[in-house]
Amino acid sequence: MSTSPLRVGLLGLGTVNTAVAQRVVQHAQLLEAHAGRPVVLRGVAVRDTARQRDIDLGEVIVTADAAALVTAETIDVIVEAIGGTDPVLPLLRAALAAGKHVVTANKEVIARHGDELGALAVKHGVALRYGAAAGAAVPMLELFDNALGGDDITSIDAICNSTTNFVLEQMGRGGLTLDQAIAEAQRLGFAEADPSTDIDGWDAAFKLALLAGHAFGGHVDVDLVRRRGIRDVTTADLQRADEMGCAIKLLAHAAWDGSRVSLSVQPTLLVRGGHPLASVDGSRNGVLVQSDLAGTTLLTGTGAGGDPTASAVVNDIVITARDGAAGWRPVPQGSLEVMSADDAECAAYVRIRSSGGAVGDEVAQMLEDRGVPVVSIMMSATDEVVVLTGTAPVSVIANAMDTIDSMPVVDRVLACLEVGGKV
Amino acid sequence: MSTSPLRVGLLGLGTVNTAVAQRVVQHAQLLEAHAGRPVVLRGVAVRDTARQRDIDLGEVIVTADAAALVTAETIDVIVEAIGGTDPVLPLLRAALAAGKHVVTANKEVIARHGDELGALAVKHGVALRYGAAAGAAVPMLELFDNALGGDDITSIDAICNSTTNFVLEQMGRGGLTLDQAIAEAQRLGFAEADPSTDIDGWDAAFKLALLAGHAFGGHVDVDLVRRRGIRDVTTADLQRADEMGCAIKLLAHAAWDGSRVSLSVQPTLLVRGGHPLASVDGSRNGVLVQSDLAGTTLLTGTGAGGDPTASAVVNDIVITARDGAAGWRPVPQGSLEVMSADDAECAAYVRIRSSGGAVGDEVAQMLEDRGVPVVSIMMSATDEVVVLTGTAPVSVIANAMDTIDSMPVVDRVLACLEVGGKV
Repeated sequence: MSTSPLRVGLLGLGTVNTAVAQRVVQHAQLLEAHAGRPVVLRGVAVRDTARQRDIDLGEVIVTADAAALVTAETIDVIVEAIGGTDPVLPLLRAALAAGKHVVTANKEVIARHGDELGALAVKHGVALRYGAAAGAAVPMLELFDNALGGDDITSIDAICNSTTNFVLEQMGRGGLTLDQAIAEAQRLGFAEADPSTDIDGWDAAFKLALLAGHAFGGHVDVDLVRRRGIRDVTTADLQRADEMGCAIKLLAHAAWDGSRVSLSVQPTLLVRGGHPLASVDGSRNGVLVQSDLAGTTLLTGTGAGGDPTASAVVNDIVITARDGAAGWRPVPQGSLEVMSADDAECAAYVRIRSSGGAVGDEVAQMLEDRGVPVVSIMMSATDEVVVLTGTAPVSVIANAMDTIDSMPVVDRVLACLEVGGKV
Repeated sequence: MSTSPLRVGLLGLGTVNTAVAQRVVQHAQLLEAHAGRPVVLRGVAVRDTARQRDIDLGEVIVTADAAALVTAETIDVIVEAIGGTDPVLPLLRAALAAGKHVVTANKEVIARHGDELGALAVKHGVALRYGAAAGAAVPMLELFDNALGGDDITSIDAICNSTTNFVLEQMGRGGLTLDQAIAEAQRLGFAEADPSTDIDGWDAAFKLALLAGHAFGGHVDVDLVRRRGIRDVTTADLQRADEMGCAIKLLAHAAWDGSRVSLSVQPTLLVRGGHPLASVDGSRNGVLVQSDLAGTTLLTGTGAGGDPTASAVVNDIVITARDGAAGWRPVPQGSLEVMSADDAECAAYVRIRSSGGAVGDEVAQMLEDRGVPVVSIMMSATDEVVVLTGTAPVSVIANAMDTIDSMPVVDRVLACLEVGGKV
C-alpha cells in the first residue's frame, strides 16, 4: 500500500467540487485516518479563472486548461463534477488513458458511456468510481457492489430525484400548480433554469440505469426506460392521493425475471405507512431492494445538495487512496435485455369525470371483463370517481383507459397513475 | 485476478451454514457471475458426523476434525458459524496463521478478539470479513467501511436484536408478561433455551462494539458499554408507551465527541412517526447514522434468521473470491476511549405511582430545580403520573430518581427509561 499522498485534480468548481475542495483542504487529518495516507488537492480546472470563489485554495493551481490537468504528471485522481457529456466525455477518456483514477458525480456520462469508460479504466489499471451519481450521500450502488453478492435480486424501487419530490410536495400540501411549484423550486435553488432533466424524468432514468446495471450486471440503455415525467400530474390528483392516505412520487422501478429487466420511471401512488418509500420526502432519497435471501432492504439518506453529494465524492476519493483500483470492478460489458412495456404489469389509480349514470358500476364491470381486478371505487362529492385496480398487464390497462374514455357514462379519464407495491 | 475456484470450508452446519452450503452448491452460476470465478464447497466440520442433515452435500468432505479442516491445503476460506469464543478462537487463529481467509457471522469472537484476529490476518496477507455479525442481511458495517469515508460521524443508533424486538412486541400488543413472551419466542425458535445473551443486552452490545469500532476507528471494550437489558421493562410501560404513540425498543447507541465514544444499550422510548427506528419491528434491524456531510442515513433490513444471515456470509465469500484480501482493512489497533456514564446525557420517561397530593407539580418543580427540563406531565385515571424530561446529564437524572422515590407525595418510581432522539 502506498503511503505517499494521493494527489487530486478537480474538474469544475461549482457547489459540489467547492464542498469537495473544502473537505480535502480543511479535514486533511480525518481523510488521512480513513485512507491510511494523505489526500492532497493539487489542481483545479475551471472555465473562468478570474472569477471570485468562496474558497481559499492557497497554493493549488487553478487553470482553464482542463485537457492539461487530466494528463498532468502531478495528479493521481481526477474528480469531475461538471455534469453532462460535453466536454466531460473526452476529458474522462483522456484522464483514464493517462492512467489517472476517475471519480465523478455525473450520472449522465456514466449512464450513457459507463461501459466504454469502465473498459478503458480496466485497460489502464485504474478505477472509475461514481458513488455520488445515484443518490448523492445515499450509498445505493454500494448495496449491489459490496453487499447482496450472494443474493438473487428481483426488484429495485427508488426515489432518486429531489427536485420532483419538492415540486410534488409543493403542489400537494402547498396547493400550487406545477408551474408555480417549479418557479418556487428555482427560487430556492432546488431546480435548474431549464428544469426538464428533472421534471421529465431523465435524471431519475439515468440513476435507474446505474442501479439496474450494478444490480443485474450489464449495461442498461437509458433510452429503453419506460419514462413519464410529472408534467401531467395535477394538484387535484395530489390532493385526492393525500385524502386516500397516499403520496404521489416520481418512482424509479426495475424488476428482473431471470433474463430480462423491466425499467420504468413514472409518477406513482404510494400508500403512506404501507410503502416504505412513501415518506421519503424533500431532499431525501431512498432505495428499496427485494432479494431472495435478504428479503427487503431499505436505504434512505440525503440525495441532493453540495455537502451530501461531496460526501459520496470524497468517500470515493478516500477509497481510491486506500485501495487504488483494488476492490473496484466495472459493470460487466454487454447490455441487459430490456422487457418491452407490453410485458410489464402494474396496478393503477384512475380518476374519471362522470357524465352521469352508474359510472362506477359500469367501469368496474368493464375492467373485470378484461381481467383487471378492481380493488376499490371511491365516489367524490363532485362528479368524480376514483378506481384502484389490482395488478394487470400495462397494455391491458392502457387499452381499458381508451375504452373508459369512450364510454357514454364517462366524460373523461382525468388521470391514470401506476400504484407502487402490492395492492 | 485468480480464475481458479475459491475453495470453501465450513465450521459448523447449523441453520446459517446449512443455508450457506445450499447457496454455494445450488446457485453456483449466480455466485460465479458475481465473483468472477467459481466458488466451491470443499469441506465441512461438524461435531457429530453421523447426524442426519437436511442437505445433500454430495462429494463434500464432512469431518469432525475442525482443526485439520482449518489448515487443509484444499481450502482457501474458512466460514465459521459456530458462535461464541470456545473452540472458535483457536480455530480462527489457526486458519489465519495457515493463510486462509476467514468469514464469520460470530459477533462475540470479533467484539472480544477482533483486534488480535485482524492483526493476524494482516500479518498473513488474508482477509477477515464479518458482515453478518452486525445486523445479518443489513450491511451496517458497509456504511462505515465503504461509504461515509469523508464524513465525520457523530452518532449511531441501532436496533440490532430481533429477539428483544419480538419479546417487547408480544408484551406490548400481545399483553404477555416478560416470561410468557420469552416462552413464546422460544417456542417459535426466535430465542435460545438460555435467552440471557439477548435479553440482557449482550448480543446488542457485541454488535454496537463492532459498529462503533468501524465508525470511529478503534477497538471497543464491550464491557464498557453502558448496558441494561429488558428484564425490568413491564407490560404496563409498553402499553403506556403505545398510548403515547411510542414504542419501547432495545436501542444500541454510540456517540463521538471527537475524542471519546459514548456507548449504551438499553430499552428506549422512541416516538412512532418521529424516530425512524420506532417502526423497525420483528425480525427487522436498522441503523441510523448522523454525519456532518451526509446528514442522516438510515439502513434497515432483515436482521435474523438462516437465509438473511447466510445472505451476508455468502456476500463475504463472494467479495473474498472477487478481491482476496484487497479492499479489506482491519479496524485500526488501539482502543477507543470510552466516555464514563457520568458524562453522558439523555432525556427520560419516568412513571411514578402517587401516594396522593399534587405529585405532578412537586416532581416537576424538583426536576426544574436541578436543571432537568420537563417536557410533559401526564396523569392517568389510576394513581400514576408519567413525566417526560428534556436532555440532562445521566447522573443528574439518576440522582433525581432517588429523590423522587423518597418524596412524601410519591409511593414509588415504577420505571425510568431513556428517550431516543430529540425531545
